[in-house]
Amino acid sequence: MTHKVLLLPGDGIGPEIAAQAARLLKACQEAGLDIDVEEALVGGSAYDVHGEPLPAETLEKAKAASAILLGAVGGPKWDKIEDLSKRPEKGLLGLRKNLGLFGNLRPAMLYPQLASASSLKPELVAGLDIMIVRELTGGIYFGQPRGIEERNGERVGFNTYIYSESEIERIGRVAFEMAQKRGKKLCSVDKANVLEVTILWREVMERLAPEYPDVELSHMYVDNAAMQLVRAPKQFDVVVTGNMFGDILSDAAAMLTGSIGMLPSASLNESGQGMYEPCHGSAPDIAGQNIANPLAMMLSVAMMLRYSLNETAMAERIEAAVGSVLDDGLRTADIASEGMQTIGTDAMGDAVLAA
Amino acid sequence: MTHKVLLLPGDGIGPEIAAQAARLLKACQEAGLDIDVEEALVGGSAYDVHGEPLPAETLEKAKAASAILLGAVGGPKWDKIEDLSKRPEKGLLGLRKNLGLFGNLRPAMLYPQLASASSLKPELVAGLDIMIVRELTGGIYFGQPRGIEERNGERVGFNTYIYSESEIERIGRVAFEMAQKRGKKLCSVDKANVLEVTILWREVMERLAPEYPDVELSHMYVDNAAMQLVRAPKQFDVVVTGNMFGDILSDAAAMLTGSIGMLPSASLNESGQGMYEPCHGSAPDIAGQNIANPLAMMLSVAMMLRYSLNETAMAERIEAAVGSVLDDGLRTADIASEGMQTIGTDAMGDAVLAA
Ligand SMILES: CC(C)[C@H](C(=O)O)[C@@H](O)C(=O)O
Ligand SMILES: CC(C)[C@H](C(=O)O)[C@@H](O)C(=O)O
Repeated sequence: MTHKVLLLPGDGIGPEIAAQAARLLKACQEAGLDIDVEEALVGGSAYDVHGEPLPAETLEKAKAASAILLGAVGGPKWDKIEDLSKRPEKGLLGLRKNLGLFGNLRPAMLYPQLASASSLKPELVAGLDIMIVRELTGGIYFGQPRGIEERNGERVGFNTYIYSESEIERIGRVAFEMAQKRGKKLCSVDKANVLEVTILWREVMERLAPEYPDVELSHMYVDNAAMQLVRAPKQFDVVVTGNMFGDILSDAAAMLTGSIGMLPSASLNESGQGMYEPCHGSAPDIAGQNIANPLAMMLSVAMMLRYSLNETAMAERIEAAVGSVLDDGLRTADIASEGMQTIGTDAMGDAVLAA
Repeated sequence: MTHKVLLLPGDGIGPEIAAQAARLLKACQEAGLDIDVEEALVGGSAYDVHGEPLPAETLEKAKAASAILLGAVGGPKWDKIEDLSKRPEKGLLGLRKNLGLFGNLRPAMLYPQLASASSLKPELVAGLDIMIVRELTGGIYFGQPRGIEERNGERVGFNTYIYSESEIERIGRVAFEMAQKRGKKLCSVDKANVLEVTILWREVMERLAPEYPDVELSHMYVDNAAMQLVRAPKQFDVVVTGNMFGDILSDAAAMLTGSIGMLPSASLNESGQGMYEPCHGSAPDIAGQNIANPLAMMLSVAMMLRYSLNETAMAERIEAAVGSVLDDGLRTADIASEGMQTIGTDAMGDAVLAA
């Protein structure tokens, strides 16, 4: 069966790094992978053409695809759009919600070749390998009621942080299963000393625990988790948390590695359909200069092959190619260091393809 | 006029470090400070005696005081209390809310003597001096509706993240004024690409900016702020944010210094009345062992002298004493390092008093 892959370049550096992913996909096809690649607009670039960040056509194509590869969305150009529902970010959020991509896997691992790029002392991050499992279609990102309105003579802004038991259970199972495949340690992050919604969160995680007797479950308050990530990140194996806390902690964790330009992520739904994207954003300040790091995007292709297309061997080939390019001393500007050769986006793409 | 100071030792290591603060207050009295010191129960220790974390008597005393010194609250002993309103944390939250202590000042600064204690590379944190201004009586901590209830056949947990214009303006002014007294840079942290409540937040900050033309205002999304704190913390001067984001970011920032045991904090209301407490928590695992670091608590006394009692000279004397104790190579276990002398809580108190 021919798999459909939808490529969504998006905004900022998105198109540049997506171009490298497209070349990589072509190479995979030549190596025998049976896929059909389409492209569509999302985010600010879709807004510019269609007046909305998630055109119906894009959503239809996304629904029909086995897997989606997304560059990045957003940029200052669209920050002034008054109507929040038209902002580039809504393209991304709309895809997540409409496809039910509730399970967001955000690995934070340190490439040994890039150990010196971390802002932390090397001994604290050497061998770092954390998997953050973030709930992606609920919580305060989507909770109702929300808005800005007049009350008692002044405006108030409000959002609702809400989770149901079944939403928590669903992401909990993803995290427990992930822990079973890894180091068998799961840390659930909440703020159960203040927020009722996370009291329920903690309760459901506790209830699931006996079904995964080989996994050691612990709980941590989000403020403490932010501290522990800075203090001793290697204490973590798998971390599970809600949408908002996951947004904050996964970015902090990714930055610990000093090479956020290297980190892919996956967002999966119940049927294994997935959207794959780099952890870094659209970096509008460096867009169009051929200096962005395409590796996170190319590693997103590998993650897609593994999780949605079941092509483990091909995924491993890509990951090995990235490793050997790093071994060869090739670096984009974001991960440049003394004695290494700094190259641009295209050249990095060339190098990975050659490897 | 005799100032009333209320000392609330609280739980865990609270009583031990509060004892050192009490000695310091006595020394201040002997040096001519006209204060009247009382003690009261709060948190788990109040629950154990009165069945509630904030007894009426404690609240009365707090209202009558010019300033409050709090050790810390909470611990596993009380984590199983089903009724959230009886948990130790509610003692702290009740004090904040009832006294209107909306302005939380959380400095994250690195003592030059402790540079090696940071988990970050020394060049990234040398001279670090950030002031996080956190809104403390609103946002999701106090928003209504909140709770856990049955909907469509399953339980849901929910909280409300809400701010009014006047609440935002009030904390905004504290932050702009703080920036004027410091490096004249203010970074407001929000999630305005997703949450309406923070769109209003950003709008109000923008509206205030022209009144403080000497302050350079910038905005940052909370996920990016968490990354930037890890990547290049010295880019920040004053940071202003809401209650929840402030909880997370201030702890991360404090941990960057590697010496959270050194950091005091202040929570002020509109009339300058303040509550002062260490940034670290109740550390139940090391309670009762005479090894806790009392310096954050003693520096909280200095902060109180400066902000609520207008005794700048005496505050400076305490800060200088702490500096000289560090210069002498004395350290508690949390900040111990090679070649330095590790001492206990009491001995550290002795050393500061002697200095
Ligand atoms: C762009 C933004 C809406 C998004 C989020 O907050 O989820 C991004 O920060 C991410 O983490 O993927
Ligand atoms: C103890 C807890 C309720 C409190 C908070 O979340 O505000 C603490 O973490 C703090 O930051 O002072």
